[in-house]
Amino acid sequence: MTDIVYEHPLNEKIRTYLRLEYLFAQLKQLQSLNDEVQQQCFFNVLFDLIEVLERNDVRPELIKDLERCESQLVLWSKHPSVSDSKLQVLLQQAVRLQSELLRSGKLVGTLKDDKFLAPLRQRFSIPGGSCYFDMPQLQYWIHLDAPLRQKMAADWLQQIQLTQQAIQLVLRFVRERSAFSDALAENGFYQQNAEHYELLRLSYNNELAVYPTISGNRYRYAIRFMQLCDELSRSACDKDIPFKLACC
Amino acid sequence: MTDIVYEHPLNEKIRTYLRLEYLFAQLKQLQSLNDEVQQQCFFNVLFDLIEVLERNDVRPELIKDLERCESQLVLWSKHPSVSDSKLQVLLQQAVRLQSELLRSGKLVGTLKDDKFLAPLRQRFSIPGGSCYFDMPQLQYWIHLDAPLRQKMAADWLQQIQLTQQAIQLVLRFVRERSAFSDALAENGFYQQNAEHYELLRLSYNNELAVYPTISGNRYRYAIRFMQLCDELSRSACDKDIPFKLACC
Repeated sequence: MTDIVYEHPLNEKIRTYLRLEYLFAQLKQLQSLNDEVQQQCFFNVLFDLIEVLERNDVRPELIKDLERCESQLVLWSKHPSVSDSKLQVLLQQAVRLQSELLRSGKLVGTLKDDKFLAPLRQRFSIPGGSCYFDMPQLQYWIHLDAPLRQKMAADWLQQIQLTQQAIQLVLRFVRERSAFSDALAENGFYQQNAEHYELLRLSYNNELAVYPTISGNRYRYAIRFMQLCDELSRSACDKDIPFKLACC
Repeated sequence: MTDIVYEHPLNEKIRTYLRLEYLFAQLKQLQSLNDEVQQQCFFNVLFDLIEVLERNDVRPELIKDLERCESQLVLWSKHPSVSDSKLQVLLQQAVRLQSELLRSGKLVGTLKDDKFLAPLRQRFSIPGGSCYFDMPQLQYWIHLDAPLRQKMAADWLQQIQLTQQAIQLVLRFVRERSAFSDALAENGFYQQNAEHYELLRLSYNNELAVYPTISGNRYRYAIRFMQLCDELSRSACDKDIPFKLACC
């Protein structure tokens, strides 16, 4: 029995943030580069991340969102009952990230033009293209001592660390806008007005053998619970499904 | 100090075989689906494999190559000094794989149209597209009990097992055509006529801090050893480099 938290973005900006957060989380897990498969996956995820950063100009959005975090924190800090040192830490972090982002150039840093990564990136975009016969330098690299490779990987990640920290802080604020409350999907269906929410968070229990699909925008959203049949094809569920919902 | 075996295909057919062999090997390592990252990688590799199988019609080539293996084995078995039971096992395997391939339809089996895999595959082809918000069914699936997921993964792999076995046997025969012999790349360079070889295998020691790049076709090939400079940019090496070479 596991409670699964499913998050659904209601606009493109949060969609991109979640995508980046997810890729950063994967990179962190793969960073130890323990075996060849893990290293292949590391490069796969790294190149996906560079691609997403290149395609979406998240820098101005992140700066605006950090400003909002800052204003919110300043408001809270003026409240007489609040005297939290944690709040001061967050405030400092928001201000620092903002000014660093304002000073920074492209968020991908020099990763895009890195002399080692660039030729690999071209190959990784082809299905099954990461074979060694097209990239003998990768086969050589993978046989170098682990600490040396880990150091290089850390240097690459260092260049996108600012983005990772900014996204982490901004998404934390978005998520903390609302707490979970109980809801019921009658006949597997639930809909509401969105009232300019940006993110829906839904907690459900996998013992019910259903999973949620959400369609929606900033004005309105609908949740439909689905089930996987025996051959793993999908069909709508018509039972009443209790779940928890947070609209952020 | 590690001896690295670098393999370079001299035609498109062997190129595709090596690509598939490499993807099969990765799948095998990821098949235990121990954590979320491993599962994401598993699907990535599985979809790459389906894509390569779809784009290249390897079935007739494999059948022809298995026929060649069979003829070779029959020849050997007639030789008075050979009475190896291993040879009989290989012969039976070659005959079985051949007839199964002749009877089989598409090599991807039903994987391409699988109701669970097909929607995921579309998403995985987008950089960072494997986020759960676009695939709640995957998030649900990943939280199912491990044995259940492993069983499903095994069923998917079962469908491409025939291809995997055929490629394994054929590549084994190709590799066994020749043994390694010593060679020297003067000023980091070596070239020869290819004499209709299909695969070059090159063994080098990574303590020399160089790696080979090969250009070539069925008539002629050239090997140029390269080195990675401090910033991991590549440059040609001009030292004499000893290595081992097998032309298959």
